[in-house]
Amino acid sequence: MPDYKAILNTIYQEAIKAKDKGIVASYIPELAHVDVTNFGIHLKTYNHGSFSVGDFNKKFSIQSISKALALAEAIELIGDAVWNRVTVEPSGHPFNQLALLEIENGIPRNPLINAGAIVIADILVSNLKNPKQDFLNYVRGLANDNTINYNKAVANSEKITGYKNFAAANLLKSFKNLNNPVDEVLDFYFHQCAIEMTCSQLSDAFFMFSNNGICIQNKQHITDRQVKRINALMLTCGFYDEAGEFAFKVGLPGKSGVGGGIVALLPDKFVITTWAPGLNKKGNSKLGMLALEQFTTQTKQSIF
Amino acid sequence: MPDYKAILNTIYQEAIKAKDKGIVASYIPELAHVDVTNFGIHLKTYNHGSFSVGDFNKKFSIQSISKALALAEAIELIGDAVWNRVTVEPSGHPFNQLALLEIENGIPRNPLINAGAIVIADILVSNLKNPKQDFLNYVRGLANDNTINYNKAVANSEKITGYKNFAAANLLKSFKNLNNPVDEVLDFYFHQCAIEMTCSQLSDAFFMFSNNGICIQNKQHITDRQVKRINALMLTCGFYDEAGEFAFKVGLPGKSGVGGGIVALLPDKFVITTWAPGLNKKGNSKLGMLALEQFTTQTKQSIF
Amino acid sequence: MPDYKAILNTIYQEAIKAKDKGIVASYIPELAHVDVTNFGIHLKTYNHGSFSVGDFNKKFSIQSISKALALAEAIELIGDAVWNRVTVEPSGHPFNQLALLEIENGIPRNPLINAGAIVIADILVSNLKNPKQDFLNYVRGLANDNTINYNKAVANSEKITGYKNFAAANLLKSFKNLNNPVDEVLDFYFHQCAIEMTCSQLSDAFFMFSNNGICIQNKQHITDRQVKRINALMLTCGFYDEAGEFAFKVGLPGKSGVGGGIVALLPDKFVITTWAPGLNKKGNSKLGMLALEQFTTQTKQSIF
Amino acid sequence: MPDYKAILNTIYQEAIKAKDKGIVASYIPELAHVDVTNFGIHLKTYNHGSFSVGDFNKKFSIQSISKALALAEAIELIGDAVWNRVTVEPSGHPFNQLALLEIENGIPRNPLINAGAIVIADILVSNLKNPKQDFLNYVRGLANDNTINYNKAVANSEKITGYKNFAAANLLKSFKNLNNPVDEVLDFYFHQCAIEMTCSQLSDAFFMFSNNGICIQNKQHITDRQVKRINALMLTCGFYDEAGEFAFKVGLPGKSGVGGGIVALLPDKFVITTWAPGLNKKGNSKLGMLALEQFTTQTKQSIF
Repeated sequence: MPDYKAILNTIYQEAIKAKDKGIVASYIPELAHVDVTNFGIHLKTYNHGSFSVGDFNKKFSIQSISKALALAEAIELIGDAVWNRVTVEPSGHPFNQLALLEIENGIPRNPLINAGAIVIADILVSNLKNPKQDFLNYVRGLANDNTINYNKAVANSEKITGYKNFAAANLLKSFKNLNNPVDEVLDFYFHQCAIEMTCSQLSDAFFMFSNNGICIQNKQHITDRQVKRINALMLTCGFYDEAGEFAFKVGLPGKSGVGGGIVALLPDKFVITTWAPGLNKKGNSKLGMLALEQFTTQTKQSIF
Repeated sequence: MPDYKAILNTIYQEAIKAKDKGIVASYIPELAHVDVTNFGIHLKTYNHGSFSVGDFNKKFSIQSISKALALAEAIELIGDAVWNRVTVEPSGHPFNQLALLEIENGIPRNPLINAGAIVIADILVSNLKNPKQDFLNYVRGLANDNTINYNKAVANSEKITGYKNFAAANLLKSFKNLNNPVDEVLDFYFHQCAIEMTCSQLSDAFFMFSNNGICIQNKQHITDRQVKRINALMLTCGFYDEAGEFAFKVGLPGKSGVGGGIVALLPDKFVITTWAPGLNKKGNSKLGMLALEQFTTQTKQSIF
Repeated sequence: MPDYKAILNTIYQEAIKAKDKGIVASYIPELAHVDVTNFGIHLKTYNHGSFSVGDFNKKFSIQSISKALALAEAIELIGDAVWNRVTVEPSGHPFNQLALLEIENGIPRNPLINAGAIVIADILVSNLKNPKQDFLNYVRGLANDNTINYNKAVANSEKITGYKNFAAANLLKSFKNLNNPVDEVLDFYFHQCAIEMTCSQLSDAFFMFSNNGICIQNKQHITDRQVKRINALMLTCGFYDEAGEFAFKVGLPGKSGVGGGIVALLPDKFVITTWAPGLNKKGNSKLGMLALEQFTTQTKQSIF
Repeated sequence: MPDYKAILNTIYQEAIKAKDKGIVASYIPELAHVDVTNFGIHLKTYNHGSFSVGDFNKKFSIQSISKALALAEAIELIGDAVWNRVTVEPSGHPFNQLALLEIENGIPRNPLINAGAIVIADILVSNLKNPKQDFLNYVRGLANDNTINYNKAVANSEKITGYKNFAAANLLKSFKNLNNPVDEVLDFYFHQCAIEMTCSQLSDAFFMFSNNGICIQNKQHITDRQVKRINALMLTCGFYDEAGEFAFKVGLPGKSGVGGGIVALLPDKFVITTWAPGLNKKGNSKLGMLALEQFTTQTKQSIF
């Protein structure tokens, strides 16, 4: 077993020295105020306990990281029927996302781009009794922590400014790939993205993906095969237009969010979560990417 | 002077024999009920009076024909400032309209495609005191007819089903090319499209475009140069993806709508309006296209 | 009749004062050497003789202007069968020309963009016995001038650097919309573009388009209807991504080339040719555009 | 250790029963003649020897599988300078490949799509003394087998019909991302694709990718880090528009070719090669995909 404690400390000390810490996302006004110097790492291993450093216990907005959790619940609810409404291939260029949706007749390329995640949100709205409360409970259950909550101000902030998501949802609706009203689906979606969690809570919640679908409360949520599907999707599509770069540099399935969080995992081995709110040009956490690259390099633990 | 009366009659008799009258637009539910056998023509000449045949006096939904009238009022209100927010070039392919808007950073290609017309609607909402009433009055003034009105059921029908327009408006908003709330602009836009007029009322309202900007009430609304701009736009962009075909076959500036209307004009000569609700595959009135082609062929009066 | 002589002189004197004369095209090395101060205008009227000013008698590379002449000959040879292989609609954005060709399965949008002109060249190569010589003779016949010739250095220069045209031709070939070998078609095409003519020779050659298909030697080359088709195409597609602008500002069907020439015409009235090698950002002659705008404004003679 | 022998036999017996064996690629005429009933599997493990079944010892055209080998040699020759000319991200949709290349200014998305592989071929042509012979020797060296050779008829067949590749190469040239003449680069590229190998030879040649860059002759060709890059690329981009599907169903880095071959590997564990010339709709070997999915399912050995 690598000396995880020492490795995390070294990585942390090295990373916080970086002069250029990236830029905090400003398109969601509420997120623009976050202090760029925050930086935390949390590692949850399969057999050897947990390790952490820095701001691993501060809450932050999980944003797109929630897409993996929502996808898991949608699969738990309706199984492979999910794939009738969204495919599983990388989407290529981000700037023509709506173009691709038009060309492909309203079937999003994968559930981790916004259009695809909105379809997943629609599935949850259709299949949950109290969608927002039920999804929150799902995440709380995965992390075994009832203090997890939505940040209503962030959800509201995005509702007021998220025109591209309204455009995508209406386009999906025009192709009949949205069953519920646009406003209802996006209200759910903006809340889903506005969940606040700490690094350690995220490591706990994602543990299921490294453990064949069994969560930390020992409940089997999805099958082995379904987990494999989600992990494959995170590897090929989890990092916007930087998925190829992440697959190479880090070599782990994972998901990032514009709040600056990244969760990555090695099946049967560990889950690691980083949080540093400064983003690189592709929208992924700058220090987080550096830390994860160092982690898999120094521990020699990656899928490749 | 050609024998307009005889020519219109011949064209009319010929056209109504057509077995394939096209298909009535069904995407706006309220429009789906219109009888496909309606067919009217109205010609208003510069010096020689008016001529008409068939259902020229029945009201129909002018739909996209309204875009030319809204553009005229926007130009009358803010002049060339219009061109800061929309360009004047043909848009090519209809199926990637949102794609084009994404690539060109939210500046629609021209004011006669939907995205461009929504920008024009936004300008009117910003510059009119009571936008819907004022625009209606503007059209009534052009046609000198206060009986012209909105069909609220049609406007509402489109509001409920016009997801692509909501997608476009939100995309414009994300590029900061929409100053008013999406719902307000689209409410105006759907009303604008839901005006009902007869062939003869449309010939009257469009007379200004053939008369250097002076309407039938002898008021100078826009300048000579501004009219030329609008006519050039109608010629190059007035018929969806069939502008080139119309320019060739008919050879007149004009504008069509999915309600089955077409207005075309020859500067200093005439305005001609046709209405037949069956559409061809490109979304233009099938009998209307045939009738106009025959008209310019038989009268030898076109711009080419 | 307007005082054409005085008008041309005024326009000429005004235009040559322009400090910014545009930039001479440099992508074809042989064309980069042309002196940017060249400027000529030639007007050929229907009934009132010809008028000219400046460098109207100097030869220049006609480049894309040749596309209208090649199209005319293709139509003369095989008639409407031309339209099985190329459509007649504006192409919208220039930067995704190959994209559009891919999406539309190898059928170019119109015969005046490069891909479409290459298809026309293929038709001529298939239907002429000695394609290069025969086409040259055709142009000589239209202008009644046997001194017109190819500039071999320019044709060769483009053959060595015209990679985008090779890309387009191979893409057409992959869609089976090119019957002859790529090299043979492009050799013809590069020669076609490398014809050198003066303003007055071009006015003579294009006279047919303003005269119902009858050339200055009084031969009927194409029908009235076929001329109308070509004029409509020149109006909607003759100026790259500035067709809408030209339709408005000048209001005449016409065709420009990167050699700095522009030919425009008013049916039954006149042909006017300008040459000034400095181009604007859209690739059209800067002084030529200005001169033609002035011409139709001052003479009040345009199609709108 | 799983009972590889039994597993391969079961998979083989199951797969050959399939009534729909896919369709043999016909766009390269020489490949159209291959018998669709061919089917072979070869497994080369790290510590436990090799296993094989069926037509594992028949030669077939490796086609796009060669892209991984060419990339390895390019990296061996010029290192990370490769990434100045091609990026590492999935390309999304295949049908707008040229479009993407236009939009991204001639920098292909990754070295495993055709445009990217042509850039790699250009690098090899620039950096090898006798490109075709040297590359052949490189592959022979990796597999330790001097009988490996080009099939000249296949190379020639593609040269005559590969118009899309000529289009891509010329487009690259127009963006100055091709240093050598188009014909020379494509001659090399068509030969590279026309190498013939057996399943067992391919397993040997790809062993390096599962062994940290050290080939079966114990020579370190590329570094550990460089291997990781290539494996990440094969996982995210190795299967045309089916990379996401393969990552999920098989869960191994790999590369397929239209000749019907697929090579996949698990670092430090094994290389497995299948050959069945019938392709599915996405262009990947139908039986090969099925066999590999069964293999990783039954052995529980994949990266996820």
